[in-house]
Amino acid sequence: MIRMTAYKWVPTAVHGLVRDLRVRWALEEAGLPYEVQLVERGPEQATAEFRAWQPYGQVPAYEEDGLTLFESGAIVLHIAEKSEALMPKTLRAQVLQWSLAALNSVEMATMLPMLMRFGGVPDGAPRDWALDFCRARLRDTAAVLKDRDYIVCERFTAADILMATVLSELRDTDLVEKEPGIAAYHARCLARPAYKKALADQLRTFAENAPTA
Amino acid sequence: MIRMTAYKWVPTAVHGLVRDLRVRWALEEAGLPYEVQLVERGPEQATAEFRAWQPYGQVPAYEEDGLTLFESGAIVLHIAEKSEALMPKTLRAQVLQWSLAALNSVEMATMLPMLMRFGGVPDGAPRDWALDFCRARLRDTAAVLKDRDYIVCERFTAADILMATVLSELRDTDLVEKEPGIAAYHARCLARPAYKKALADQLRTFAENAPTA
Repeated sequence: MIRMTAYKWVPTAVHGLVRDLRVRWALEEAGLPYEVQLVERGPEQATAEFRAWQPYGQVPAYEEDGLTLFESGAIVLHIAEKSEALMPKTLRAQVLQWSLAALNSVEMATMLPMLMRFGGVPDGAPRDWALDFCRARLRDTAAVLKDRDYIVCERFTAADILMATVLSELRDTDLVEKEPGIAAYHARCLARPAYKKALADQLRTFAENAPTA
Repeated sequence: MIRMTAYKWVPTAVHGLVRDLRVRWALEEAGLPYEVQLVERGPEQATAEFRAWQPYGQVPAYEEDGLTLFESGAIVLHIAEKSEALMPKTLRAQVLQWSLAALNSVEMATMLPMLMRFGGVPDGAPRDWALDFCRARLRDTAAVLKDRDYIVCERFTAADILMATVLSELRDTDLVEKEPGIAAYHARCLARPAYKKALADQLRTFAENAPTA
């Protein structure tokens, strides 16, 4: 049986962004049943037991027949290796390549506007620079998507789960809509039934556990 | 035969940081011979031919018997799969996990001070916030290294190539030296003959091609 962790509740600003969504989405695409172990944000994240499973005190963490894993990208790739739906055998190296590109070359750029906002970087030159860096990455990614519907090839793979959720981090900006090829790709990925199911499950948990006013 | 790209020359500020170093290091550890194709920074990086190989116009890119790859992390993992020296069969999932942790959970934090500096973020609250974020990631990583010499287990793996080169990005700060467990780990990795050979090869190329004053 597969077991994964997810937060019981988080503020609305990050609903649909917490990274258990990636793992839920991969499991839905692969058709694998799983259980969710809910984690309360706070002291539970700092216990030795929790840190042994997730050294950075975050979610998701994953357990399957005694194998424990953390880091959402690694968990998605681990699931992908069990599923032709997520990683066709002949495209293994390319799925890995684009998964890493999403989580490093692209996310390094998409996280920057978000992290600068959290960090209180004011409007002006530094923020403009971060946005330009991000725009360049999106433009280069859009050039790749001119020739195909998904990031690896004509069909959906695990790399699209990672690329699409990385792009979702830009939802408070107009960066995605300003790059039409990226906007169409993002919408194409998020229209998948497996994504909708995964998102609904994450949001239902947050709704059920919302603090009363 | 294996072929990879590297820059002909870059400014001193990034000597020893350009990511072909990771691939050179992995190839040296695995004992695989390779050829380097030098890339001049500028128009060559924007050609359709170059972008077909490296969509973001960077180095390294990799070619091996017709298989082309980009993204240094993906190339290192591809090499690792050929080499018990880099990825013991029984630890595949854990090497992947820690490689992704280095390139995402940790590098997201280590790149922030560097990117903010490039972006001209002035001293003050935002930069302090970025440094605190980075310190927390290093502290959590140091806790893991209390129990073992390398990031996956007692022996060196591909994940250490990625984690150590991520930590090198902090060389203009005191963040690594302030976390003794991280400093000792970083030094342990960089003391390896394969790293020294890879670094010497990168630096020799830059020296040979340095612009004359």
